[in-house]
Amino acid sequence: MADAQQLTAQFAAPAGVEEAAHRMADFAARHGSAGRRVVLVTSGGTKVPLESRTVRFLDNFSSGRRGATSAEYFLEAGYAVIFLHRHRSLFPFSRRYASLNWLDALQLVPAEGPGQGEELASASGFRTEVAPKAVPGLVPVLQRYQRVKEAGTLLSVEFNTLSEYLHLLMAGAQALSPLGNSAMFYLAAAVSDFYIPASEMPEHKIQSSSGPLQISMKMVPKMLSPLVREWAPQAFVISFKLETDPTIITERAQRALELYRHQVVVANILETLRTHVLIITQNSSTDLYLSEQEAAQGKEIEEKIVNDLLARHSSFINQN
Amino acid sequence: MADAQQLTAQFAAPAGVEEAAHRMADFAARHGSAGRRVVLVTSGGTKVPLESRTVRFLDNFSSGRRGATSAEYFLEAGYAVIFLHRHRSLFPFSRRYASLNWLDALQLVPAEGPGQGEELASASGFRTEVAPKAVPGLVPVLQRYQRVKEAGTLLSVEFNTLSEYLHLLMAGAQALSPLGNSAMFYLAAAVSDFYIPASEMPEHKIQSSSGPLQISMKMVPKMLSPLVREWAPQAFVISFKLETDPTIITERAQRALELYRHQVVVANILETLRTHVLIITQNSSTDLYLSEQEAAQGKEIEEKIVNDLLARHSSFINQN
Repeated sequence: MADAQQLTAQFAAPAGVEEAAHRMADFAARHGSAGRRVVLVTSGGTKVPLESRTVRFLDNFSSGRRGATSAEYFLEAGYAVIFLHRHRSLFPFSRRYASLNWLDALQLVPAEGPGQGEELASASGFRTEVAPKAVPGLVPVLQRYQRVKEAGTLLSVEFNTLSEYLHLLMAGAQALSPLGNSAMFYLAAAVSDFYIPASEMPEHKIQSSSGPLQISMKMVPKMLSPLVREWAPQAFVISFKLETDPTIITERAQRALELYRHQVVVANILETLRTHVLIITQNSSTDLYLSEQEAAQGKEIEEKIVNDLLARHSSFINQN
Repeated sequence: MADAQQLTAQFAAPAGVEEAAHRMADFAARHGSAGRRVVLVTSGGTKVPLESRTVRFLDNFSSGRRGATSAEYFLEAGYAVIFLHRHRSLFPFSRRYASLNWLDALQLVPAEGPGQGEELASASGFRTEVAPKAVPGLVPVLQRYQRVKEAGTLLSVEFNTLSEYLHLLMAGAQALSPLGNSAMFYLAAAVSDFYIPASEMPEHKIQSSSGPLQISMKMVPKMLSPLVREWAPQAFVISFKLETDPTIITERAQRALELYRHQVVVANILETLRTHVLIITQNSSTDLYLSEQEAAQGKEIEEKIVNDLLARHSSFINQN
């Protein structure tokens, strides 16, 4: 309770939260009544402003790869997915082309009047095509993306700042709560631990001529606590721990499970993010590895993480 | 000198700088000997790590719009452009589609065997086309981009961190120095004023359990000083000032001109970035505005900025 009150007191609700809350509630209700499990995947880092008219901010390293990739495997497994992600972080399916300048992949082909079926050539006299060799493997990815769009099983919700993230997470939790234990939270976003309260923030840009910069930041209330206790108490909840020091990771994951009483911590070390994770519960620890051979075949560790968690979610549903 | 020495002492040269330095030197020499003016445009914000194995960092708000847009107008005016920009910030031409998920714009069209000229349909049996209505105005933009690629007048160089930016700027300045006064620097990047020296940086991720965070940051050496005095002393140099407080902007711009002895400051206020700038020199101040009507017609203030600076660059060349 204290944490939830602190949230609303310290972070004013940003514009757009209410509309997103409605979209999430509708989405969850529709898929819940169709008997589908629903997972809320959070992804990407949060921005923490240092000035109220923001020029400078603190950020967390996160491309959003883990969340975007996992979302695809959840969709494949039949879950409906609310993808709550940082604006411009990686997105399911299109993540493969994040470093592509699409203009480099396109070619102009003279149009020959009305062409394929109902599609008319552009008024410019050209069709614009993806050069066949420019984006290998595009067709099957596009087909999978189009099937997901037709099925309506992916809902995209965006945040930029920490404050937006916190309010949208609360709204998402309240949207999924009616689904009971068939709801899952997969909290892969890299959320800042620190922030500057609005009351202590300078209005204008900090002047470099004033000399070296001293920043004093408060700790962000842990939203896992009200999420598990109040917002969605029956749901299956997975948090993430990213550390750079391998000697402390298991102990820190277990401390989090004791403190928040949720079901799983996925723990990883920055340097081996894509080849090794630990799935830690209150009474177990499971290592998942991606071998070099699997990586060479294009396999992804997120497939293993998601498969592992699906099984745990099924047991959780059966036990409750 | 002190600044330049501080640079190399405080910021170790990142990998890749040497290769980029060669590319910039070749590019500048080729276009210089073709009688073309060359501008180095910097664009986007810099990352400043707070930990040496970086999870957290300080960042500056900057989409890279100003730099990417201006680069297009410099290209149109016949300049060769080195575009030194933050990884994934806006890029010339493709900047218009930054918020587009290209997968939403593509459609699969059954291929009918070998088709247009030499282009074979993809092995999947489909061609991938941009749906004609999905990306209005694409064809002329793509044509302009392809002409620039053919002409070889745009060189893309990327940075992420402050340290990469500083080293690449120095290398770029040294590459352009032989061109004398036909070289221009258009320093639109939002460079951090503060950093944490490597010697004072924690190796591992800062633990939130240690309580509130105190960050103490040093001031970044101003590279404008060695750039103007040593690295490219004959070049035409434009710096940018972004402020949130309109009452101090002109005075701060003039102080910068006195201190660094360069030619122009382009000054802007965060809230009117896209409709008003001040072009400030040691003895003049010129307001440029974009009217609502011009904005509605798709005009951009960068066209006016670039046109203004072209004329000033020509006078500068004639006077020297």
